[in-house]
Amino acid sequence: MYGLTAGAGARRFAPWPINAGGYEHGMSTAKNQVSPPEFGPAFQQTLGDLFAWRRDVRRFRTDPVPAELLDRIFDMACLSPSVGNSQPWRFVTVDEPARRQEVSRDFESANDAALQGYQGERAKLYASLKLAGLKEAPIHLAVFSDEETAQGHGLGQATMPETLRYSTVTAVYGLWLAARAFGVGVGWVSIIHPETVTGLLDVPESWTLVAYLCVGWPLQEQVKPELAVAGWQSRESLCRQILRR
Amino acid sequence: MYGLTAGAGARRFAPWPINAGGYEHGMSTAKNQVSPPEFGPAFQQTLGDLFAWRRDVRRFRTDPVPAELLDRIFDMACLSPSVGNSQPWRFVTVDEPARRQEVSRDFESANDAALQGYQGERAKLYASLKLAGLKEAPIHLAVFSDEETAQGHGLGQATMPETLRYSTVTAVYGLWLAARAFGVGVGWVSIIHPETVTGLLDVPESWTLVAYLCVGWPLQEQVKPELAVAGWQSRESLCRQILRR
Repeated sequence: MYGLTAGAGARRFAPWPINAGGYEHGMSTAKNQVSPPEFGPAFQQTLGDLFAWRRDVRRFRTDPVPAELLDRIFDMACLSPSVGNSQPWRFVTVDEPARRQEVSRDFESANDAALQGYQGERAKLYASLKLAGLKEAPIHLAVFSDEETAQGHGLGQATMPETLRYSTVTAVYGLWLAARAFGVGVGWVSIIHPETVTGLLDVPESWTLVAYLCVGWPLQEQVKPELAVAGWQSRESLCRQILRR
Repeated sequence: MYGLTAGAGARRFAPWPINAGGYEHGMSTAKNQVSPPEFGPAFQQTLGDLFAWRRDVRRFRTDPVPAELLDRIFDMACLSPSVGNSQPWRFVTVDEPARRQEVSRDFESANDAALQGYQGERAKLYASLKLAGLKEAPIHLAVFSDEETAQGHGLGQATMPETLRYSTVTAVYGLWLAARAFGVGVGWVSIIHPETVTGLLDVPESWTLVAYLCVGWPLQEQVKPELAVAGWQSRESLCRQILRR
């Protein structure tokens, strides 16, 4: 097993074979004359299980995640949809301990402030929740959206420019599902000050922080969301209605 | 096979069994003491294929999609992550022909305007693209985000309120992947005026339109994005780099 090695700069990763008759991910010379695979009932059922068992993970082991496994997960994330095929997602791992600590401190400050917004029993419950695994997770992953990417040539964005950031969100969920399929947990930490965290990471000015993720091996598996188990918020039927117009 | 029947109001759908020892999706009485399923190498590979073969579909058959199949797809979409477990997604099918036509007209007007933003060869290419299947797709699905939902009690949103809409985006991608696993295609149409389309649909004022989707049986399957095939935008290696900080 490999941990993430220290080092500056960017790391590319090797594509892994997709069942598409030799189609190489991302290579424009690939032929488009292949038959789609069959997604049968067993896969459909297991896909449902994957969706059901994917949690927002806050409790991690500190063990590293192998680099080649991360490669596969990122590769799948990059197959997510994007407006105009713009692919605006930008991944930054926050490896330096001092930076990680700054992010943890920012989380604690934002979390303390958030607690002030609740009273009584609700406040007690909030204070009891573990809402991030920033200290334990072997990987901190900041996912940015490049608001000025030329890719896609603006197609689809004229009246709904937010679709660029939404495209980056789909890459986050794609990464999340892919990770879960390999037993790797992801937790999305939004209890931070995005400008503060962005400022720590020395990224281009056109990049907007969309998601700050903890990634690693979860301490436990559960099929119910932690916030439902804790009594904060259960799943509601409202979201499963369809309005007809 | 059932088409969507005409009728007013909302339609709930029956949960389908998830491999979780009798866990009923969404029921707070479910025990949390079940073992997670195994996601083995074959499933992981097929999941990669699913990601690779999920397209933004613009060319649809007009055949209806059975209601029970839609139920399964929506059920899986509702297992998507949401900030504070807020579940802010709201689904609206646009069934009335007059409304569908208004949306098509709005698309055409927005598309004509967008074309004016290009010149020369790029403009010719844009004009040649089919960018929506609004006329043919049996289902128009507007996905809103309820900006004032009490669900989640604001957890995680204080410093990053956009995460509410981002949660709805994850439900869109979840629906998209689930659909593809059943051979159903989805196309996200962002070349519309969101205020116009929202105004047509008589929804609560607190709802923000996140995505307008065409859903139906695709005319063809392809592993390359249509925009890449058309020469508009290929997949780039830039998005597959990881910056280290």
